[in-house]
Amino acid sequence: MEGVDYLADERKKAQFDVDEMKIVWAGSRHAFEVSDRISKLVANDPGFSKEERTMLPRKELFKNTLRKAAYAWKLIIDLHLSEEEAEKLRCFIDEPAFIDAHWVLTSCLTLIFAYAKLLLWAQRNNRKGGCPWPTRCKFGCYAQTELGHGSNVRGLETTATFDPQTDEFVIHSPTLTSSKWWPGGLGKVSTHAVVYARLITDGKDHGINAFIIQLRSLEDHKPLPGITIGDIGTKFGNGAYNTVDNGVLRFDHVRIPRDQMLMSVSQVTKVGKYVQFDVPRQLLYVPMVDVRQTIVADASTALSRAVCIATRYSAVRRQFGSQNGGQEIQVIDYKTQQSRLFPLLASAYAFRFVGEWLKRLYTDVTQRLQAKDFSTVPEVHACTAGLKSLTTTATADGIEECRKLCGGHGYLCSSGLPELFAIYVPACTYEGDNIVLLLQVARYLMKTVSQLGSRKKPVGTIAYMGKLEHLMQCRFDVEQAKDWLKPSVILEAFEARAARMSVACAQNISKFDNPEEGFAELAADLVEAALAHCQLIVVSKFIEKLQQDIPGKGVKQQLEVLCGIYALFLLHKHQGDFLGTGYITSKQASVANEQLRALYSQLRPNAISLVDAFNYTDHFLGSILGRYDGNVYPKLYEAAWKDPLNESDVPDGFHEYIRPLLKQQLLQTARL
Amino acid sequence: MEGVDYLADERKKAQFDVDEMKIVWAGSRHAFEVSDRISKLVANDPGFSKEERTMLPRKELFKNTLRKAAYAWKLIIDLHLSEEEAEKLRCFIDEPAFIDAHWVLTSCLTLIFAYAKLLLWAQRNNRKGGCPWPTRCKFGCYAQTELGHGSNVRGLETTATFDPQTDEFVIHSPTLTSSKWWPGGLGKVSTHAVVYARLITDGKDHGINAFIIQLRSLEDHKPLPGITIGDIGTKFGNGAYNTVDNGVLRFDHVRIPRDQMLMSVSQVTKVGKYVQFDVPRQLLYVPMVDVRQTIVADASTALSRAVCIATRYSAVRRQFGSQNGGQEIQVIDYKTQQSRLFPLLASAYAFRFVGEWLKRLYTDVTQRLQAKDFSTVPEVHACTAGLKSLTTTATADGIEECRKLCGGHGYLCSSGLPELFAIYVPACTYEGDNIVLLLQVARYLMKTVSQLGSRKKPVGTIAYMGKLEHLMQCRFDVEQAKDWLKPSVILEAFEARAARMSVACAQNISKFDNPEEGFAELAADLVEAALAHCQLIVVSKFIEKLQQDIPGKGVKQQLEVLCGIYALFLLHKHQGDFLGTGYITSKQASVANEQLRALYSQLRPNAISLVDAFNYTDHFLGSILGRYDGNVYPKLYEAAWKDPLNESDVPDGFHEYIRPLLKQQLLQTARL
Repeated sequence: MEGVDYLADERKKAQFDVDEMKIVWAGSRHAFEVSDRISKLVANDPGFSKEERTMLPRKELFKNTLRKAAYAWKLIIDLHLSEEEAEKLRCFIDEPAFIDAHWVLTSCLTLIFAYAKLLLWAQRNNRKGGCPWPTRCKFGCYAQTELGHGSNVRGLETTATFDPQTDEFVIHSPTLTSSKWWPGGLGKVSTHAVVYARLITDGKDHGINAFIIQLRSLEDHKPLPGITIGDIGTKFGNGAYNTVDNGVLRFDHVRIPRDQMLMSVSQVTKVGKYVQFDVPRQLLYVPMVDVRQTIVADASTALSRAVCIATRYSAVRRQFGSQNGGQEIQVIDYKTQQSRLFPLLASAYAFRFVGEWLKRLYTDVTQRLQAKDFSTVPEVHACTAGLKSLTTTATADGIEECRKLCGGHGYLCSSGLPELFAIYVPACTYEGDNIVLLLQVARYLMKTVSQLGSRKKPVGTIAYMGKLEHLMQCRFDVEQAKDWLKPSVILEAFEARAARMSVACAQNISKFDNPEEGFAELAADLVEAALAHCQLIVVSKFIEKLQQDIPGKGVKQQLEVLCGIYALFLLHKHQGDFLGTGYITSKQASVANEQLRALYSQLRPNAISLVDAFNYTDHFLGSILGRYDGNVYPKLYEAAWKDPLNESDVPDGFHEYIRPLLKQQLLQTARL
Repeated sequence: MEGVDYLADERKKAQFDVDEMKIVWAGSRHAFEVSDRISKLVANDPGFSKEERTMLPRKELFKNTLRKAAYAWKLIIDLHLSEEEAEKLRCFIDEPAFIDAHWVLTSCLTLIFAYAKLLLWAQRNNRKGGCPWPTRCKFGCYAQTELGHGSNVRGLETTATFDPQTDEFVIHSPTLTSSKWWPGGLGKVSTHAVVYARLITDGKDHGINAFIIQLRSLEDHKPLPGITIGDIGTKFGNGAYNTVDNGVLRFDHVRIPRDQMLMSVSQVTKVGKYVQFDVPRQLLYVPMVDVRQTIVADASTALSRAVCIATRYSAVRRQFGSQNGGQEIQVIDYKTQQSRLFPLLASAYAFRFVGEWLKRLYTDVTQRLQAKDFSTVPEVHACTAGLKSLTTTATADGIEECRKLCGGHGYLCSSGLPELFAIYVPACTYEGDNIVLLLQVARYLMKTVSQLGSRKKPVGTIAYMGKLEHLMQCRFDVEQAKDWLKPSVILEAFEARAARMSVACAQNISKFDNPEEGFAELAADLVEAALAHCQLIVVSKFIEKLQQDIPGKGVKQQLEVLCGIYALFLLHKHQGDFLGTGYITSKQASVANEQLRALYSQLRPNAISLVDAFNYTDHFLGSILGRYDGNVYPKLYEAAWKDPLNESDVPDGFHEYIRPLLKQQLLQTARL
């Protein structure tokens, strides 16, 4: 029945003030109000319907995305939306498009956005002159990666050869593998691109530089002479990122004026002399920190959506255990369901808070830079790289786990989960492959360990290394389950584990004659040590959050339960690390596991309200299983009939392919 | 260049006879020859092209699948293919279709196939009378699950009420949640169904029984009166299972004659009396064992496809580490890549051998049944349930890991991996949800532990429990890395871990007043104990395989390396179990890890040849990244242009949506 709340009983069980939790989740009352208003605006506007998305063929899908993007622009103007509101609008439209912030991230590139932003930044801050982008209203993309070259920028093959005769660069794709490949918005929409190419002057290779190049006519949108552009083809998922025109681009000796090189880091003079400016290397990392802190925030959004769907449907769905013909048991009451679902719910909150903290960290680092203080940059860079890796891997896996937690129905597109997964999962690869990033963290950890004797004291997220002597020797000496709820106990356990794993790696590397060889050989162990360090950061930032004053009846208590679940779940999952480094005994580990079970029971009555606190509209969730009112089955039934296959009772192809088989024209003679 | 083998250097490195390994993989020379011949037949027939699959809209996709299925039938007849050859043909066509064996599995049902097969089996073996299926050439499906009811057959709501006045059953869907939902082939193709419904005679509910019901006219294929049928809508993946018409079905008081009840297990007499026959319960499990052993075999096929793609592309792809302007390093040479990829390669082989063994076990159990020996059924049932769970979870996760191991390009449909994942992943849910299955294994383990004192000796895969006293006390007492290569050492480690985890669970359950409550509360721990038991089975069957005579230069040595990798990888992954149960020390665990690294280095030169041994055609792999000749980049480039979005330079929607933005008609007035 319409209008009935089938989850009302669940909502009555909540032991905390859900409205106050909404504020905590949003970050502030203001942020909550903006999100709430804009998400409802999108949800109530049929122009933003997502219903057909998974059924549209590619061309129609793409055109529909163009329509939505243009319509969004119109709304932004008509309603005089602020930048904050416009950003929220695009977020809640929930469709990757060339025009919104996502398009930068679609391109599986590591440094592109960062690097180009740096150039602009440097230009704006250090040097006079206009923005190198022709005007802001042309569509541009960052064309870095090539068909044969991903993360390693130095391997790019596209060339920009200076011709002093004409004062021009000749841009060329010398090989097939040098074709630009992946940039989002490149295939069909962009008129301009920032192209990364190998600069050659007077026969000498000066490495990778960036150039602004017009790709398409501003009149008829056709590719300019010497330029081949196209879409790279269908990607994972039914709708998913197929709304975006990730592109391929080749140059055949295309000439551009000398001033279209982005000359803020280096310059080519009229006579072809290459000059490099003295820009601090640390600056390069700052835009990366910015992008990655956004990715961490997005991880909590994506994971919380999946968790919201799986939690609500786990309360709706019943299976087995019916007594005397009564109703079956809600699947959320099974311990196996809880032990898979609740840690993901806790992770969504954990990632939210670590994301908030990262945002403040980014503000701090940019303020320091203005005062020419580069000291925190390496630590901040390692920390954001690691958190990007940790949160995106956990979120991608978590979305898929939520899908499985919904049983068979999670496999239907109308559950929303297949799309959420397909759209989310590139986050594990773009802006730094997650394993490569953990190796960067590991490198930083090894450096820290090697410098421990020196005057350089570890600060920030690595400060715990300063008490290494204690961490290497201490033992966990309490026995009761409830001891595992003390923040200081949890923290020391994670610190001791992380520190000991780093030290073990450093010792093993030192056994090699060549430390680089040792690092390469032990890479898999180093990745594990880096992950232990990153998990410590997330746990410690959750604990820090709980040390703040958090208003609202029962709100803090719920967060304490979630924090306990997050930490003890990790402890159980990585029990081998904690036991192997000798910090805890197996008896203590099993006591921790008992405590974890007890926390699941405490969470259970609050589960639905904890996902309600995300304040997602049914439009944004895009899932029949996750509907706020729990009215799942009638809506699943209704949705089925919209499939194109149901346009006729008798399917296309019946007369050619089914009828002959039915009439045994084929089968009678088969040997089978 | 066409015709060049870009992986020739890799192939030269092999230290074993690849042709002999192909025989080992196929299971026999005969099996190899059939597979080889039929796979090439399919690959060379343009009628079976898969190129467009991910780009077709649903209706066209479905029609194309009908076409392929009808064409396959034609070939089977024209070429006089045997049953074995026909099965291979359908396997290599590689498109889930209503008509092939897969359709049974598409329906996410637990017992359907099993139960219906049992009925047929019982009927054929124990009772006189014809097959209850009208004729073999009508299309039928098994309609068990309902919109609101999955695994729990007893919860089904559809009713079959006997009307003695007319000697008919009245089939009815009393609620929306009683709509049949998921059966593959139901939506558009099937003319008949075996429908599971609650039998009611004289007002009394006799539980679930099965009925044969005609759904569509055999003339015009339209649904018969009182019957509503449709497709349940789009599913995960671009093509994937959208080739199948998983369906929804409702009955409005549909009348069928009494003899359309499948009356081999129970019967309704003319006057409405319900009679149950004395069919041994164990028989019910046998068809399940059959289906699940097939699923295990399919797991090794799916995982090996993904591994083949990721391994070949890891040898083609180069990144970083270029010295003096030379080529970058092949990513397969990075230890992080090896530590993720090689255990999956080892798993593919491990699952192959355990699948072979399961097939023999099934033959054994059916022979025993003919001699009315039911003694091994419970053990065989637990073992196949557990192995279905273990192998399908590992395969689904493994395919996605292989996709990530291919970097950004793995996200393109032309990599083949997104489709492989989307098609494979329902295996974790259908034929028994993987977690539910592990709980069944756990129940069997707890029963075994409780009976240890009694005269009933554990046999088969659970025989190790017979030496529990030893397994609870023994300690691993060797120190050198190479000790970890001894089969007896590995086996005892896995036995001790599994036994100790089971015993710990049993002890913890005994602390509860009510064992059922204890079982429910400790479900998550029980799942882990069950997994430990199942991993032991896989490891022990791999070791048994190696005790056979295996011809071919170096073949056995390679299998020994793979077996070591599989076991030591699991040991590392579940280090917490091995340390927690006290069988090994953390020193020994890290020595095992060193040995594992050494095995990766031994495997490395043979990696490409070990995936060549699967003998998959490029057609079957369906992946540009996994091409046999390694000619990846030119083919990726070529494939991109086939996307519908590339039909025109200027995309549909340009004039309506892009041009106005470019012309600043919108942007000029924006506040942003």
